[in-house]
Amino acid sequence: MIYLDNAATTYPKPNSVRSATALALRKYGANPGRAGHDMSIAAAEEIYRCRTAAADFFRAPGPECVAFTLNCTHALNYVLKGLLKPGDHAVTSCLEHNAVSRPLHALSETGVEVSAAQVYPGDNDATVDSFRRAIRSNTRLIVCTHASNVWGIRLPVERIAALGHEYRIPIAVDCAQSAGVLPVDMADSGIDYLCIAGHKGLYGPMGTGLLITANGSGLSTLIEGGTGTNSAREEQPDGMPERMESGTQNMPGIAGLRAGIEFVKARGADRIFQHEMTLTRLLYERLAGMKNIRLYTDEPTPRYFAPVLSFNVGDLPSEIVGRKLNEHGIAVRTGLHCAPAAHRFFGTLEQGAVRVCPSVFTFRQEIDRLVQVLATIR
Amino acid sequence: MIYLDNAATTYPKPNSVRSATALALRKYGANPGRAGHDMSIAAAEEIYRCRTAAADFFRAPGPECVAFTLNCTHALNYVLKGLLKPGDHAVTSCLEHNAVSRPLHALSETGVEVSAAQVYPGDNDATVDSFRRAIRSNTRLIVCTHASNVWGIRLPVERIAALGHEYRIPIAVDCAQSAGVLPVDMADSGIDYLCIAGHKGLYGPMGTGLLITANGSGLSTLIEGGTGTNSAREEQPDGMPERMESGTQNMPGIAGLRAGIEFVKARGADRIFQHEMTLTRLLYERLAGMKNIRLYTDEPTPRYFAPVLSFNVGDLPSEIVGRKLNEHGIAVRTGLHCAPAAHRFFGTLEQGAVRVCPSVFTFRQEIDRLVQVLATIR
Repeated sequence: MIYLDNAATTYPKPNSVRSATALALRKYGANPGRAGHDMSIAAAEEIYRCRTAAADFFRAPGPECVAFTLNCTHALNYVLKGLLKPGDHAVTSCLEHNAVSRPLHALSETGVEVSAAQVYPGDNDATVDSFRRAIRSNTRLIVCTHASNVWGIRLPVERIAALGHEYRIPIAVDCAQSAGVLPVDMADSGIDYLCIAGHKGLYGPMGTGLLITANGSGLSTLIEGGTGTNSAREEQPDGMPERMESGTQNMPGIAGLRAGIEFVKARGADRIFQHEMTLTRLLYERLAGMKNIRLYTDEPTPRYFAPVLSFNVGDLPSEIVGRKLNEHGIAVRTGLHCAPAAHRFFGTLEQGAVRVCPSVFTFRQEIDRLVQVLATIR
Repeated sequence: MIYLDNAATTYPKPNSVRSATALALRKYGANPGRAGHDMSIAAAEEIYRCRTAAADFFRAPGPECVAFTLNCTHALNYVLKGLLKPGDHAVTSCLEHNAVSRPLHALSETGVEVSAAQVYPGDNDATVDSFRRAIRSNTRLIVCTHASNVWGIRLPVERIAALGHEYRIPIAVDCAQSAGVLPVDMADSGIDYLCIAGHKGLYGPMGTGLLITANGSGLSTLIEGGTGTNSAREEQPDGMPERMESGTQNMPGIAGLRAGIEFVKARGADRIFQHEMTLTRLLYERLAGMKNIRLYTDEPTPRYFAPVLSFNVGDLPSEIVGRKLNEHGIAVRTGLHCAPAAHRFFGTLEQGAVRVCPSVFTFRQEIDRLVQVLATIR
C-alpha cells in the first residue's frame, strides 16, 4: 500500500513508538500519579518524560504547562469553552477545521460573537491586516489554524500572535497539521495556547493530544473529576497540568508519543519538512502538467505552505477518484476533510477534493506511482 | 511484585489485549471512519467490533449506543453536563468518586441543585428509600456509583433505576469499579446511561472509557469537532455515537479494549467475580483476626459487595503502610482514592485507607503474603 493519508494520521509509526507503547502496557501498567508504589511512580515518571520532551520541543516555559488530551479537538474545546463567555468576541480564520468552527458555532448560540478573518495565501501582510480589522473592543481570543488541513496554506501565526498581544488578546493555535513539521516556538512567538495532535507529525499513537499553555489556571474547566491531587477538595485543582487531566490518562499512548517526539527531534523537524515539501512540490509540478487536473493553490513554496496538497480530477467527485486510487493500493483522503470553510474558500464544497500528504517515510517513487495512476483516471 | 491496585488499573493485561493493541498500531494505522481507503475501513471495522462486543456484553440496544471516551470520568461529565441545566435537581449518593462529585459541584455553581442520598450497606430497602426521599419535582437525573471504589459497597442500581423510572427520572450509573465484575444489564435494568472505565475490570488499556446510552441525541455536547460525518454542517451530528466522539479516537486502545471484553466474556464475569470475592473474603477474615487492623465494613458478602477492601493498621497514616508494603514488593493504593465522600462515610478523611483489590490474575498466595507482611507492621 502507498499511504498518502498522513494528514489524518501518520503511518507507519516509527518502531520506537510501537515499542514504547507496548513496553508501557507491560512495564508501566499502573495508574500514574495515583499511588505511591513503584510501578505507579515509574508510570508517572514516563508521563513526565513526555511532558518534558513536549515542553522542550515547543519551547514551553516548563513541563507543567503540558496537559495531555484525547486529541487536538479536545484541547481546542478546552481553550475555547474555558475562555469565551457570553458577550465575548472571538476572531478566527476562514480556513478552520470543524475542531475550531463547531465549538465556536456552539458558543455562538450562547451569545459569543465570532468573526472569520479572510486569509490571503502568499500575502501575509494582507492576512494580518484582515485579522486586525476583525478585532473589536470585546475580542477575548484569536484562534486559528497554523496550516490548513486541506490546502496546506500556512497562516503567519507568529505575526498574528504579536498583533493579538498588541491588543492584549491571547492567541490559540490549532497545530494539528503543523506540529512536528513547521517550527512552533512558544517562547519566541508568545503563542498562549498550543493545541496539538499527537498522532500526526509527532508520530504518536492515535488517542493522544496536547494542550500547552502557561495560563491553564485561567481556563474554566469542561471536565472535572479525579486527578490524584487535592482529592479532598470538591473543586478541580487550579494548577496545570492536573486541572486539564481528569480521570485516567492514555498511558500507553503517551509513552508512544514521547518516543514519537524524540524520533522527530532526532531526525530534525526541519529536515522532515524539507523532505515532505520536496515531495509535495514534485507532485504539484507533475499535476500542473496534466490538463485534466484541477489545482487550487499557487505552487507550494516552503514559506507559505505546509506539505499538504489537495486537487481534483476534472469534475469527477473526489470520492470516485479516491476509490480508483484505492483500487491501485494508494490511500488518500477525499471529501471535505472535516473543514467545510476551507472548501468554501476554493469552491469545492460540492466536489470535495483529493488530499495527499507525505510523511517522513514517503518515497519519491510513491509520488511517481500516484501520478501514473492519476493519469489513467478519466 | 504483588500487584493489588487493580481498582485503579488492572495489571497485568491479558496477552490478547497487548497483542490487539500492538496489532492495531501496525495494521489499523489509518484514521477510522474518515476515509474510503482499505486501511481506514479496516480500522473502522475494528472499532465497530469493539462497539458490538460492548453492546452485547452490557446488553445495550445496539452498537450505535456505544461511544468511546478517554475514560469513565469523561463519560460521566458528558452525561451530567449534557443533561443538567440551571434549576434542575440531581440525586446522587454519599459514596461518590470525584468523577461524579466534582462535576456536580461545578454544576451546583451554575444553579443545579444536588442531594446526596444516604447509603445503608447491607440494607437495600433503606438505601432505595433514601433515594426516594431525595427526589423532588425538579429532579432531572439520578447518578450514582455501582460500587464504591473505596469500600466495595454495592448500590442496588437496578432498584434505583426502577425507582427513577417510576418518577420518569433517568439514571446514570458509574460502573468504573463494576464493569466486567458485577452484572450490568441495560436491557433488564433500564439503566439509561452507563459510564464505564475500559482499563479496570474490562482489562483494556488505560485511556479507554465508554458511554453507553440509547439517549445520546438528547444530551447537549461538551465537545464538538470533526466526526467524519455531516462534515458540511456547523452543528455537531445528532446521532450516536458520532455526537460524543469528536476528533481522532484512541484506535489502539479501543482494539485492546475489544480484546479485553472478549477475555472477560471467555472467562465469564461471574467466575471472575467469584474468584475475586473469594480472595477478598479471605483477606477480610484474616484481617478480622488481627487486633491491630481496623476494618470498616461488615464481612463482604457477594450480594452487598464488590471485591474491593480498604482498611487501616491501627492509627498509622495509610501512606506509611503503603510505603512499607511497597518495600516488600506489594502494590496497594492508599490515601483518599479520589473519593472524599466515601472516606467521610467511615471517618477516614484524615487517615485515608489501605485499599486492596484483586484481579482475575491474583493468587491466594499473594493475599497470604500481604497478610504476613501486614502482621509485621506496627
